[in-house]
Amino acid sequence: MVYRESFKVQSRDKAVSFHDVTEQTKEAVKKSGVKNGIVVVYSHHTTCSVITQECAFDMSMTGLETLQQDLVNVFEDIIPTYRSEGMYLHPQAQALVFAEEHGEDARGCHNTDAHLRSSIIGRNVTIVIADGEADLGEFGRVHFIDWDQTRARQRTVQIMIIGE
Amino acid sequence: MVYRESFKVQSRDKAVSFHDVTEQTKEAVKKSGVKNGIVVVYSHHTTCSVITQECAFDMSMTGLETLQQDLVNVFEDIIPTYRSEGMYLHPQAQALVFAEEHGEDARGCHNTDAHLRSSIIGRNVTIVIADGEADLGEFGRVHFIDWDQTRARQRTVQIMIIGE
Amino acid sequence: MVYRESFKVQSRDKAVSFHDVTEQTKEAVKKSGVKNGIVVVYSHHTTCSVITQECAFDMSMTGLETLQQDLVNVFEDIIPTYRSEGMYLHPQAQALVFAEEHGEDARGCHNTDAHLRSSIIGRNVTIVIADGEADLGEFGRVHFIDWDQTRARQRTVQIMIIGE
Repeated sequence: MVYRESFKVQSRDKAVSFHDVTEQTKEAVKKSGVKNGIVVVYSHHTTCSVITQECAFDMSMTGLETLQQDLVNVFEDIIPTYRSEGMYLHPQAQALVFAEEHGEDARGCHNTDAHLRSSIIGRNVTIVIADGEADLGEFGRVHFIDWDQTRARQRTVQIMIIGE
Repeated sequence: MVYRESFKVQSRDKAVSFHDVTEQTKEAVKKSGVKNGIVVVYSHHTTCSVITQECAFDMSMTGLETLQQDLVNVFEDIIPTYRSEGMYLHPQAQALVFAEEHGEDARGCHNTDAHLRSSIIGRNVTIVIADGEADLGEFGRVHFIDWDQTRARQRTVQIMIIGE
Repeated sequence: MVYRESFKVQSRDKAVSFHDVTEQTKEAVKKSGVKNGIVVVYSHHTTCSVITQECAFDMSMTGLETLQQDLVNVFEDIIPTYRSEGMYLHPQAQALVFAEEHGEDARGCHNTDAHLRSSIIGRNVTIVIADGEADLGEFGRVHFIDWDQTRARQRTVQIMIIGE
């Protein structure tokens, strides 16, 4: 059996966005009727990721849960936010022309940090379905991350379920 | 065809634990009867990961294979073990209350490094099954990692096989 | 339905290699006839990875796209290329003997950085297939990475498609 659905989340400008998509994931598993298999939660975008993590309850000053902010802070050390030209090789002349031709402004094109963070975390999680439930563990949540801080926009989340 | 099984491994206190689960993975593929498909080896826990890597033969002073210890050392640089309060934002007041309500002591709650390392590596591997064998490569092994150094406990490994 | 194919790419010596395998991935999805499901692009090797990323158009001096070079540069900071003995614990005596027994020379065995980078990025991507197409996003490409800089050789890419 294969079951697919997709939906959109609204990211924010000037900050990394985390979206809790646990309820949508659980509901999709229920709707699919799959008892044993996998659920893949997948980002359509090359500057986004999906992870599973616990809820941390307490919030940081940027409006993230503390554990989410800790993850952002780790990446701020190893892949800092693109703040001044030349921090990264990308984008250069041809990338900027291509972006302009596709309606992206110069600021939006300087999201190299988001591409790199997404490459390291990956664009999907694969969760085992056991006895009709996504096996998230006692406190596990599914978080869709938009690493791109250069603009607010709608982002597409794909859920794909395969099993019996 | 879908085949699932799960089993437990016993992690250790005060150190990162690696468990070689290659034989269990290979045996599950054999039992499943799947000739072409995937095997997902999955951690039920948000402070654990699964990777595939070679055996390094030589051992480090903490009892890990040298290549495993090198991986731990890389993480010790970018996401150091939680040693003094305030190193990470998480956990704060509400997380500590929640943990206490669920029988977790204060030390066990300060495993932020384990949550973050697990987020970066991910909680599962997906291995292609070709001609009835998990395609691990000539020397590939499957390692279940418990990043949580705050206590020894039983951890659940899930194996899910899908194919024909 | 399950569809599998594999093919080889030729990596280069003394540099990280990126191979764009997007066309092979798209063609395999078409050949499979799967309308909804997943395509797993998988590395047979423990020193390789697969990611999805955009094309950056502009090239670095080592012959990589700028965004690929930026990713290599991030890893050069956190997991530097093995340049002088003792930088990493691995390989030690038993690993060197094992390698020699399997026809690997001493230089080829000092690819610890490649093993570690592959562990962090992972060996596969899982891409959702929606309406008969791999949902890569508007500009998404599939890149097979050979992190091993110690020799040029043929590398095996596996494509596994599961769905309906």
